[in-house]
Amino acid sequence: MNFRSDNIASVAPEIMRRMVEANVRSAGGYGADEVTGRLDRVFSDLFEAPVRVYPVVTGTAANALALSVLVPPFGAVYCHRDSHVNNEECGAPEFFTGGAKLIPLPGERAKIDLGALEAALTRGGKDDVHYTQPSALSLTQQTEEGAIYGIDELQAFAECAKGHGLGLHMDGARFANAVVALDCAPADLTWRAGIDLLSFGATKNGAMAVEGVVLFKPELAEEFGYRHKRAGQLVSKMRFLSVQLEAYLADGLWLKLASNANLMARRLAQGLTALPQAELLGPV
Amino acid sequence: MNFRSDNIASVAPEIMRRMVEANVRSAGGYGADEVTGRLDRVFSDLFEAPVRVYPVVTGTAANALALSVLVPPFGAVYCHRDSHVNNEECGAPEFFTGGAKLIPLPGERAKIDLGALEAALTRGGKDDVHYTQPSALSLTQQTEEGAIYGIDELQAFAECAKGHGLGLHMDGARFANAVVALDCAPADLTWRAGIDLLSFGATKNGAMAVEGVVLFKPELAEEFGYRHKRAGQLVSKMRFLSVQLEAYLADGLWLKLASNANLMARRLAQGLTALPQAELLGPV
Amino acid sequence: MNFRSDNIASVAPEIMRRMVEANVRSAGGYGADEVTGRLDRVFSDLFEAPVRVYPVVTGTAANALALSVLVPPFGAVYCHRDSHVNNEECGAPEFFTGGAKLIPLPGERAKIDLGALEAALTRGGKDDVHYTQPSALSLTQQTEEGAIYGIDELQAFAECAKGHGLGLHMDGARFANAVVALDCAPADLTWRAGIDLLSFGATKNGAMAVEGVVLFKPELAEEFGYRHKRAGQLVSKMRFLSVQLEAYLADGLWLKLASNANLMARRLAQGLTALPQAELLGPV
Amino acid sequence: MNFRSDNIASVAPEIMRRMVEANVRSAGGYGADEVTGRLDRVFSDLFEAPVRVYPVVTGTAANALALSVLVPPFGAVYCHRDSHVNNEECGAPEFFTGGAKLIPLPGERAKIDLGALEAALTRGGKDDVHYTQPSALSLTQQTEEGAIYGIDELQAFAECAKGHGLGLHMDGARFANAVVALDCAPADLTWRAGIDLLSFGATKNGAMAVEGVVLFKPELAEEFGYRHKRAGQLVSKMRFLSVQLEAYLADGLWLKLASNANLMARRLAQGLTALPQAELLGPV
Repeated sequence: MNFRSDNIASVAPEIMRRMVEANVRSAGGYGADEVTGRLDRVFSDLFEAPVRVYPVVTGTAANALALSVLVPPFGAVYCHRDSHVNNEECGAPEFFTGGAKLIPLPGERAKIDLGALEAALTRGGKDDVHYTQPSALSLTQQTEEGAIYGIDELQAFAECAKGHGLGLHMDGARFANAVVALDCAPADLTWRAGIDLLSFGATKNGAMAVEGVVLFKPELAEEFGYRHKRAGQLVSKMRFLSVQLEAYLADGLWLKLASNANLMARRLAQGLTALPQAELLGPV
Repeated sequence: MNFRSDNIASVAPEIMRRMVEANVRSAGGYGADEVTGRLDRVFSDLFEAPVRVYPVVTGTAANALALSVLVPPFGAVYCHRDSHVNNEECGAPEFFTGGAKLIPLPGERAKIDLGALEAALTRGGKDDVHYTQPSALSLTQQTEEGAIYGIDELQAFAECAKGHGLGLHMDGARFANAVVALDCAPADLTWRAGIDLLSFGATKNGAMAVEGVVLFKPELAEEFGYRHKRAGQLVSKMRFLSVQLEAYLADGLWLKLASNANLMARRLAQGLTALPQAELLGPV
Repeated sequence: MNFRSDNIASVAPEIMRRMVEANVRSAGGYGADEVTGRLDRVFSDLFEAPVRVYPVVTGTAANALALSVLVPPFGAVYCHRDSHVNNEECGAPEFFTGGAKLIPLPGERAKIDLGALEAALTRGGKDDVHYTQPSALSLTQQTEEGAIYGIDELQAFAECAKGHGLGLHMDGARFANAVVALDCAPADLTWRAGIDLLSFGATKNGAMAVEGVVLFKPELAEEFGYRHKRAGQLVSKMRFLSVQLEAYLADGLWLKLASNANLMARRLAQGLTALPQAELLGPV
Repeated sequence: MNFRSDNIASVAPEIMRRMVEANVRSAGGYGADEVTGRLDRVFSDLFEAPVRVYPVVTGTAANALALSVLVPPFGAVYCHRDSHVNNEECGAPEFFTGGAKLIPLPGERAKIDLGALEAALTRGGKDDVHYTQPSALSLTQQTEEGAIYGIDELQAFAECAKGHGLGLHMDGARFANAVVALDCAPADLTWRAGIDLLSFGATKNGAMAVEGVVLFKPELAEEFGYRHKRAGQLVSKMRFLSVQLEAYLADGLWLKLASNANLMARRLAQGLTALPQAELLGPV
């Protein structure tokens, strides 16, 4: 067994098959194809609201692009100190935003402590030119250490964030796992709870290389489009990204895959708990 | 018929088949897989020299990342005024370099006029802090309008560029077509002629979504790696990009595809020339 | 005589005297002093409209900061190919804007040719994500080669620019000379003609080291303030910059100095014209 | 009395007098004048080593420019969480470096805890493309809360930093106060202890608006010069900045001013300590 990464896994057969089928002459490049053309509708149906969605090839690009339309170069992004945006993206958020500042916050199992966020936001600096300006909050769902924000929690974060004028980003690299675990509507975990942009992960859960940036504020799409192209994420044969997202959602495949992953994770955790400590450490 | 773009074409069956075959559990993510592991060797064999290669998903990313390791933020990049880097990348080179300046030069059929380059380079500003500093030359092979730089021409450009301390980048979105048209070794069109970095195109010639940035100066790889990740181009299941490049090169597939494309282009040109002008303009 | 630069000249005695007098304990740092406190009013009176003004220490900073609030990182700035912003600021506009693109235009004596601007703006790319988006026009008044845009001309440029959604910036490093030469109200050369931001030069005309960025759209002030600080231009003892601007304007000093400079320039030109060509070239 | 800022104080008469005397026609602009011409020598004498010095108008610009030549855009800067670079510069270090990351560290009275630095540096990520790369350490001397790093301490920090390949920057906004308090040679607190670049403060200690960035590695000067111009800090009548630095150092003025300030601070502290707590809180 190999626990190192979700990324060594294979692509779900349903997704691979649709990619192969998509290999016919297309109506247009750079997203002007049939599959990409219906993607906004597919995601709007999923989220029960009019949304815009942009396919990108990495979670790093998804997160950094999402933040770049929420935050000015002199802005501050509040995030967990152990979050992917803060640590494992080689500074992509700083790059894409033109030098915004990430403010690392504490909290158990990579969940931000709400009190710590409130304390940071009331520490001062608002409307004072000497300080980067509080501009966005980035939450990871489920977190980098497997914790989940409940709907009530998300609403409490949103209330705090909106009260301080922050935009809300959700890094949903493992969004499917959270939806399955909470057994709720995707809308409940996102725009109904105040989320403005979602990095909708697919690669860690069965896709080949695609994430969707979902804009719950469609008016952000104009600026997003230029940044998406400028960042080298507008793939010319875009239909091969879009079809992954479409197949990922079709017939609830994304939820089936996540259910199975959650089950495996629980079994693994139970097994580890049952083991004597000595075995966990391995042979001397 | 549809002439709008190479990007509506389908993926070569040989490449698609290898992608499907690659869909097994892998040794590692983010490039730590078997296919990516041998890619440097594959390209070193092709170019008859030790090179490093980085897969990216768009030509825009390839060009902008390549320039970002040749040019400081206060640098100037000389390019054709009708080049892709200058016009159709929504400012990606400026973004990735931290604000370098592109100096547009004239020339027939998108080939830079060597005299215009020399004039621009001797116009002054070198070593004067008031001016952006001449740092790189970017040539497109074959050009955006189908012209080709011969080996002698490339050497003349390199002599001029090196004499002024410039790094040399080649945008090879259609590199295969040039290799076929000139019937020469890839090395002759690149490092032997003084090229430092090549955006080795594959997507326009049969791949799904991959370009290779080839570093003929392997010492640039360290910095390149960080910029590649930071730009959101380090795909987690990298083997699906790498296998496209490998299949593209295997058994000379890339040259066969380009030969066919060149043949079709010649026939089209001949046909257009034979048509009365009225037919070209279409019905009134 | 030394013609190399206006910058070797001495500071006007009236300005130096007021700087010496300002050397008393102040009410506050970073602009929270009495002189800076009344600067907006002084400039609003001068321009017959409510304006905001920010002192900076160089023309480079004035221009680059002004453009940074008019242009997104994926924007394009139209300017003369021989303009200071395009050539002599080591890429400061690209730096401050986060990588916007300067589009160089031709025209006699560093005046932009209006037809060339119109042609560039209608060349396409608007609302297409592959292209940087037309965002601002930067005019230098008087130009780097001594030419002056008349009021009618400015209005024609503004009509063209506004019709394409551009913001208008004026590099007024030699604004005083233009006001004197045209004998008109400062408002006529700026907001009444459609200018949004002015780099109001003082250093080349008698001040020590200060330029004022004048915002005819006061709503731009909020963003400007953060960029001004972030760029290291918010001088702690700001009163010593502000007092230069105040003394420069008091009793029409700026116009007297410019009148004298214009007179000297005319005499010089007449003298040069009268000289036999041989003398101009100097002794063999 | 007003304790709010050092910046409301007046300019030392010796400095103001020299500025007035400097108001004669100069040999050249943009630093090509006599005073600026001898500044490198003056600072080399002061620091007993060949150095280069660049005048700038704010501490923010000094610090951000210094860091920009030590750190790549994908680099990390270690600093105290309460430091000026981290908090009060509206993100200038992120802006000037092209998006580097500041890593905030704890420690008493704004002195970095050496153990915390070592822990952060050994936490991993070195040579891994997913992480910003440890590139510089920034120490403030004396700190934002009045503490001082002793020579031994500086050497210990330098040993740790150099062992991890970091460049060393000192924010010396209050450098004079530290030199006086420790009664040692400026060289002992800087290059002899491993410092690579110093923001040499003068404005808080009697100058009008000037700080000197001192490069103990003269080979950094070339890049620094371009960044200095590009940031809008190359004042055209540079002699008025340079003469402030010269007068500040002449006859030990800077040390006299700092001695007096230190004395006043001690008296204030003693007075506060002697007061009953009730008086400190003021009337109810």
